[in-house]
Amino acid sequence: MGTGDREGRAVLSDRYEAVRALTETLAEPLSAEDQTVQSMPDVSPTKWHRGHTSWFFETFLLAPADPAYERFHPRFAYIFNSYYEALGARHPRSERGLISRPGVADVTAYRRHVDEAMGELLDRPADGDRPADEDRRALVELGLHHEQQHQELLLMDIKHVLSISPLQPAYRPSIAPIKPDASTASLRSGPGWWEHEGGGAAIGHRGPGFGFDNESPRHTVHLAPFALADRTVTCGEWLAFMDDGGYQRPELWLSDGWTLVRQHGWRSPLYWSPADNGGDDVPGGDGGPGGATGGDGDWQIFTLSGPRPVDPSEPVCHVSYYEADAFAHWTGYRLPTEAEWEVAAQCRPARGGFLQLDTLHPEAAPGTPFGGVWQWTSSAYSPYPGFRTATGALGEYNGKFMVNQQVLRGGSCVTPPGHVRASYRNFFPPSARWPFAGLRLARDLEGPR
Amino acid sequence: MGTGDREGRAVLSDRYEAVRALTETLAEPLSAEDQTVQSMPDVSPTKWHRGHTSWFFETFLLAPADPAYERFHPRFAYIFNSYYEALGARHPRSERGLISRPGVADVTAYRRHVDEAMGELLDRPADGDRPADEDRRALVELGLHHEQQHQELLLMDIKHVLSISPLQPAYRPSIAPIKPDASTASLRSGPGWWEHEGGGAAIGHRGPGFGFDNESPRHTVHLAPFALADRTVTCGEWLAFMDDGGYQRPELWLSDGWTLVRQHGWRSPLYWSPADNGGDDVPGGDGGPGGATGGDGDWQIFTLSGPRPVDPSEPVCHVSYYEADAFAHWTGYRLPTEAEWEVAAQCRPARGGFLQLDTLHPEAAPGTPFGGVWQWTSSAYSPYPGFRTATGALGEYNGKFMVNQQVLRGGSCVTPPGHVRASYRNFFPPSARWPFAGLRLARDLEGPR
Amino acid sequence: MGTGDREGRAVLSDRYEAVRALTETLAEPLSAEDQTVQSMPDVSPTKWHRGHTSWFFETFLLAPADPAYERFHPRFAYIFNSYYEALGARHPRSERGLISRPGVADVTAYRRHVDEAMGELLDRPADGDRPADEDRRALVELGLHHEQQHQELLLMDIKHVLSISPLQPAYRPSIAPIKPDASTASLRSGPGWWEHEGGGAAIGHRGPGFGFDNESPRHTVHLAPFALADRTVTCGEWLAFMDDGGYQRPELWLSDGWTLVRQHGWRSPLYWSPADNGGDDVPGGDGGPGGATGGDGDWQIFTLSGPRPVDPSEPVCHVSYYEADAFAHWTGYRLPTEAEWEVAAQCRPARGGFLQLDTLHPEAAPGTPFGGVWQWTSSAYSPYPGFRTATGALGEYNGKFMVNQQVLRGGSCVTPPGHVRASYRNFFPPSARWPFAGLRLARDLEGPR
Amino acid sequence: MGTGDREGRAVLSDRYEAVRALTETLAEPLSAEDQTVQSMPDVSPTKWHRGHTSWFFETFLLAPADPAYERFHPRFAYIFNSYYEALGARHPRSERGLISRPGVADVTAYRRHVDEAMGELLDRPADGDRPADEDRRALVELGLHHEQQHQELLLMDIKHVLSISPLQPAYRPSIAPIKPDASTASLRSGPGWWEHEGGGAAIGHRGPGFGFDNESPRHTVHLAPFALADRTVTCGEWLAFMDDGGYQRPELWLSDGWTLVRQHGWRSPLYWSPADNGGDDVPGGDGGPGGATGGDGDWQIFTLSGPRPVDPSEPVCHVSYYEADAFAHWTGYRLPTEAEWEVAAQCRPARGGFLQLDTLHPEAAPGTPFGGVWQWTSSAYSPYPGFRTATGALGEYNGKFMVNQQVLRGGSCVTPPGHVRASYRNFFPPSARWPFAGLRLARDLEGPR
Repeated sequence: MGTGDREGRAVLSDRYEAVRALTETLAEPLSAEDQTVQSMPDVSPTKWHRGHTSWFFETFLLAPADPAYERFHPRFAYIFNSYYEALGARHPRSERGLISRPGVADVTAYRRHVDEAMGELLDRPADGDRPADEDRRALVELGLHHEQQHQELLLMDIKHVLSISPLQPAYRPSIAPIKPDASTASLRSGPGWWEHEGGGAAIGHRGPGFGFDNESPRHTVHLAPFALADRTVTCGEWLAFMDDGGYQRPELWLSDGWTLVRQHGWRSPLYWSPADNGGDDVPGGDGGPGGATGGDGDWQIFTLSGPRPVDPSEPVCHVSYYEADAFAHWTGYRLPTEAEWEVAAQCRPARGGFLQLDTLHPEAAPGTPFGGVWQWTSSAYSPYPGFRTATGALGEYNGKFMVNQQVLRGGSCVTPPGHVRASYRNFFPPSARWPFAGLRLARDLEGPR
Repeated sequence: MGTGDREGRAVLSDRYEAVRALTETLAEPLSAEDQTVQSMPDVSPTKWHRGHTSWFFETFLLAPADPAYERFHPRFAYIFNSYYEALGARHPRSERGLISRPGVADVTAYRRHVDEAMGELLDRPADGDRPADEDRRALVELGLHHEQQHQELLLMDIKHVLSISPLQPAYRPSIAPIKPDASTASLRSGPGWWEHEGGGAAIGHRGPGFGFDNESPRHTVHLAPFALADRTVTCGEWLAFMDDGGYQRPELWLSDGWTLVRQHGWRSPLYWSPADNGGDDVPGGDGGPGGATGGDGDWQIFTLSGPRPVDPSEPVCHVSYYEADAFAHWTGYRLPTEAEWEVAAQCRPARGGFLQLDTLHPEAAPGTPFGGVWQWTSSAYSPYPGFRTATGALGEYNGKFMVNQQVLRGGSCVTPPGHVRASYRNFFPPSARWPFAGLRLARDLEGPR
Repeated sequence: MGTGDREGRAVLSDRYEAVRALTETLAEPLSAEDQTVQSMPDVSPTKWHRGHTSWFFETFLLAPADPAYERFHPRFAYIFNSYYEALGARHPRSERGLISRPGVADVTAYRRHVDEAMGELLDRPADGDRPADEDRRALVELGLHHEQQHQELLLMDIKHVLSISPLQPAYRPSIAPIKPDASTASLRSGPGWWEHEGGGAAIGHRGPGFGFDNESPRHTVHLAPFALADRTVTCGEWLAFMDDGGYQRPELWLSDGWTLVRQHGWRSPLYWSPADNGGDDVPGGDGGPGGATGGDGDWQIFTLSGPRPVDPSEPVCHVSYYEADAFAHWTGYRLPTEAEWEVAAQCRPARGGFLQLDTLHPEAAPGTPFGGVWQWTSSAYSPYPGFRTATGALGEYNGKFMVNQQVLRGGSCVTPPGHVRASYRNFFPPSARWPFAGLRLARDLEGPR
Repeated sequence: MGTGDREGRAVLSDRYEAVRALTETLAEPLSAEDQTVQSMPDVSPTKWHRGHTSWFFETFLLAPADPAYERFHPRFAYIFNSYYEALGARHPRSERGLISRPGVADVTAYRRHVDEAMGELLDRPADGDRPADEDRRALVELGLHHEQQHQELLLMDIKHVLSISPLQPAYRPSIAPIKPDASTASLRSGPGWWEHEGGGAAIGHRGPGFGFDNESPRHTVHLAPFALADRTVTCGEWLAFMDDGGYQRPELWLSDGWTLVRQHGWRSPLYWSPADNGGDDVPGGDGGPGGATGGDGDWQIFTLSGPRPVDPSEPVCHVSYYEADAFAHWTGYRLPTEAEWEVAAQCRPARGGFLQLDTLHPEAAPGTPFGGVWQWTSSAYSPYPGFRTATGALGEYNGKFMVNQQVLRGGSCVTPPGHVRASYRNFFPPSARWPFAGLRLARDLEGPR
């Protein structure tokens, strides 16, 4: 056994501890009541996220690695399995908020139990079976990236939970102040454009670091000449869209999107409400304050630090694919494909510190394709040419969702640091509004096809 | 001001404190998570019950009595109004479990705030305006009976919440042991019968004590000769009904009931499940364990002290009106009308101690029409001749529910002591299974009509 | 065999032919398309009514009477069984309009087939087995009353079907002209009152003629002194209710009713729409034109002869129980119980010719409790004391619907002549608006209870 | 005016008459009842298709061309508008079967009215305004292709309507006999493969003939080396999939697909039912006979000539995208992308007579990518790079549906002759089973990416 191996173990151990600790830090401001509520079927309770991510390590690492491993509780496999059919029956997703027990303290004990066993496992020297050992490291890596995904979900979800309360409480105070020098002047000029001459290009994960299976295999695509906006769309621009009847003009919308607009009474992004509502009236409508019928006055926005006025200079967020597409239609531009986005991002790496989890609210991130908000693309979430799912239960991780979803690229203000890359493919149904998602415009350039 | 007045105030104060304290005692074994969950639309979270009963005193006593009274929180009127249209907008009933804040501690503080103000109010000497003073006493009395109703609801509701958890937790351990000498021998002989010769009779509240508006006015009814069973139907008798295909024979059922049987897969009372399920399988179906497909083995029942085998000698409980009616049909007897039940109960007062809140599980109560389980009657819940609703918001208390419901009589093991009487009219939709409701048989006697 | 027997047979034969012929007369104005459509789950296609009434005779008379009887088609028992569980599987009620075949011509042939066999059966001399023979006559009688019920349903249903068409077609032209001398003067004075001093009274069917099982047994009820209005409520009075915010004031409504008002946007009786809608706009809302948002102008009403202005002097029709109850609440009076109505009707027989099927639209019927519109009572549909269902499939005729319904009394302009009597109990769910139902007010009189 | 112009007009006139006449020929075997029913929301009544296609010419040609054109009926624009938001309110799609009038005869008169006016318009010499004249010809062309699409829909829809009837009637007798020499021998060997070396390729409509907007612009794609099966999957192969537990193994399915399998009880393609069902039992389940629980015996299939046994040698049909994908997963191959299909089809034109509308049931079409059944591709329906919708109402024709749908390629046995081409893009939601859709397998070839 070499030193490198020991160091490698230590590095992975440290990373394990850091990622697991961040989950607990994120849950800290939340009461037992907060951690229990499921405010809509898409949302999971905080305590479920905390349990499920532990179950992942227990199921895919601890139980297979050691026949003597004692599961924390015989029913937890039923309660904390998310969607793995190969692993047997599971508690229905839409009923996660109906379970009061296990409670928050039980979940904390569960996490400790798993962390202790994982600590031992990560400390154990390689048993000479190099491939098995590498498989195990890969699984730990996967488990950590999985947990990071749930860290973002935890924040998305708790924002929705808190937004439902008539008290409009803050997750953390003072995280999203309006920039004092916010100026709408620059908005009028529109974005700058990153141009690309088109032709063949390679997209997909190249390594050597971690990548999910859905980012592979790397392959060639052919692009027509295009340009990508150098910033995401702002709230100020979105207000102009609203003022121009954006939510009242069917000709701007995809048919399914228009159906939702009428059905749910959408008039603004999720979490927006007319500011003159004061704290005294009840924001109604669908999915929280955003459903409210707007007056013609100002708008306020619900953030993880509570409600405050809309800042026209910040990226618009919490719009569905349908809204993003209608907006693009309105501008005369369009949404980019995921391949266009990735090619543009390959040569424009993220700037340091763009993902800090300190603001928890989207800020403008000029000059980088990443950051602030996830960006809807016009690409349906499909397998790359040559894509194969893994065998066993983990084959269900990504592949079985490759229909009825759109790809989002970039990362957001609630994405954990170090989690994303140019080839990262996020995906949600086109109707989803609770992700921290906005958009970036694209346009065709003249040139040979 | 006379001594009697002061004594009267003291008595009412003591009663106020005792009733309010019981609510807190009932909530004590429950975690913050338990108090937050709403496991189905009919259920309300424990913390909501605790808040709503306080809101009742705040709204109908404190705010009208003193213009300087300071409400605990401006949004609580919205959150804790149950169904009073006259009092403005309110949080949707089916979404009470989506609110994590106010939390349990906030509700505790709210109760304290209201109790302090009520303490002062109850202490205040009559201001000479005798009618107003009596009105106020009547409202306090109403508020206390209202809170008692919610004490029973709290227990009904938390039983459903806990039953949903795959952990099948107990509310309080060891409250529902099986009687060691439970014998089914007596069951085979069937019940004894209390006979009544029929003719004119008076039913309805007579006073002088408290009665809800729906028990008035007292009036004459004409009864045909009938007999009422001297005990409620037992689990053993229900098992015989099940064994005889009770849940598979449409000819026994009301049409709407049969629709529910098929739709929800009812095969037993709510909270029953096949005992051979062990703790390892998942009781599926609708509304908890009761929906499970029964094997032909034994049955277990979920109680407020967790699961245990069915005891054939105890009253059957948690059946809907449809099931009660089908069972009666199967026996060849029938359900009593509410008038028959009341006339029989008038001369057979409850025995001391029949309602203790110590078992929290139905026990046989031979020789009294009260106790153990509520008893479905064949009477639809309708206004008595001459019934008038009160004016103002309190007119909504009972009258507006007088359609699509059946009357239940008697009281149950979770009805607070001193809450019921012979003229008491409980009511639920015929599909409701989560009340502690069973049945008592009746039959026609020969004789002049 | 006596002459009386032969004459009895001839009388029954004639009646059979007359009733069966009336069904065909009613279907005559309807195209094959009209006879196929099911415009809501409660409605059945005309061709289904024509088939089902024939199936009734085939199933309960022809097949049992003669083992050699050849059924018209092996699948018709599945298609035309309405709700008899004892007779096996049946086509789902809500999908009757999805079946294009058998078509109208097939159903006509089916009716002919059944009529021929019935002709023979009715002609056949009694075989000496007197009780069996009388049973058979009773079944024929039942079949004819059953067919009459479906004649009314056919007209109710086709009115709904035609009302759905944007063309607003007439079933028969010119059947519902406005009375030229319609005067609202008399309305302002309110109705006269038939007083009753209360006490014991007998209700229920007494014979010797036909009565449904649910009208029996005749029994004693005790009534408080009451008065019954000598006419039904008019459209003019209903307009006053609407003008006074009747559909906007929750305090007037039963809780379940108010839920429907908001859910379906009820603002007027079914089939009413604002007259200024012209023929060019689309009456929206729930269940046809009645759901339209009213302007403050005049109202038009859809009749079986197409749309025309509301006539304030005619009885209001197509209101649910909830609306009838809210209206009564608004007036300060109340709805009668079914016992009150029946006692009042016992001494006020219907005037000749009040039910003619020639108008097909409600007209005022002063001086009689019958006619014009069915009248909602405050009585839930329950079994009379001592009621027993028949054995066999026919036991399902009435008894299994005795929950969640309200009793209506009187008869309407689409009730076939000779079909009703003082003891007749019609019933519908309280939400039903497509029956020809209105209301008659009642009030308490002072006096001994 | 030149001769060419007159000839061009004559050609177009002839084509107009031929296409319009085919619609009427297809409707001929259908009764008024058949033409009225809408058996599920996706289905439209035959008379609606006949009216809507006429409305298309009225709206986009006749009304704009001649201000004096008199519309057949003022309400038909409301009734027969399908989904064009720009053209105002329209009758709800899911309620097309609730309208009995206009009836079949009214629609026939409407078609005649439109045809006469179109005859005059098509006869009218060009007015010198050449571009306008060409626009008009293009619109006529579009209207005819539109009508052809509805001819296929009419047949898809009526198959579903007839399948719902317990009588299982035939649209036309004897159109789908089993081939006497059907042999399954060839099946065991699997398909042959058309190989393609990959690299850049051009897809999309090239002209000069008609193409829909969604086929443009023609553009370059980059393909990895692949092979396409030289025939579609057969019923025999599908039976093997079923026998191997295809409908019981979640690991084969997309997550959304598996949800549908369980929700609707899918066990076979739509229109399949266990043959031992005889004619006596009722095929239940979702969307017709296909939902039935299969025994392990033989299967029968409902065709436009009624039920008959499954023929293992014919192409499998009426499967959803989810089923097609699960099947491909099971084989270890995959579905092709639409680009792969198109590139393969470019060099393999359809053989003469492959689309005849005489069989109305899929037959094997060896050696051509076209014919028999539409073929699901793995491509989501998205805009081609550079795609722009037309301005005005016709911009809604295709573009607004470009989400939540999968592309199908090829054409089927109910596609009118001359309607399809290599660049043709059909599309349906992945759950749709009532199109005549099957699948063709593809696989990756080794080689440079």
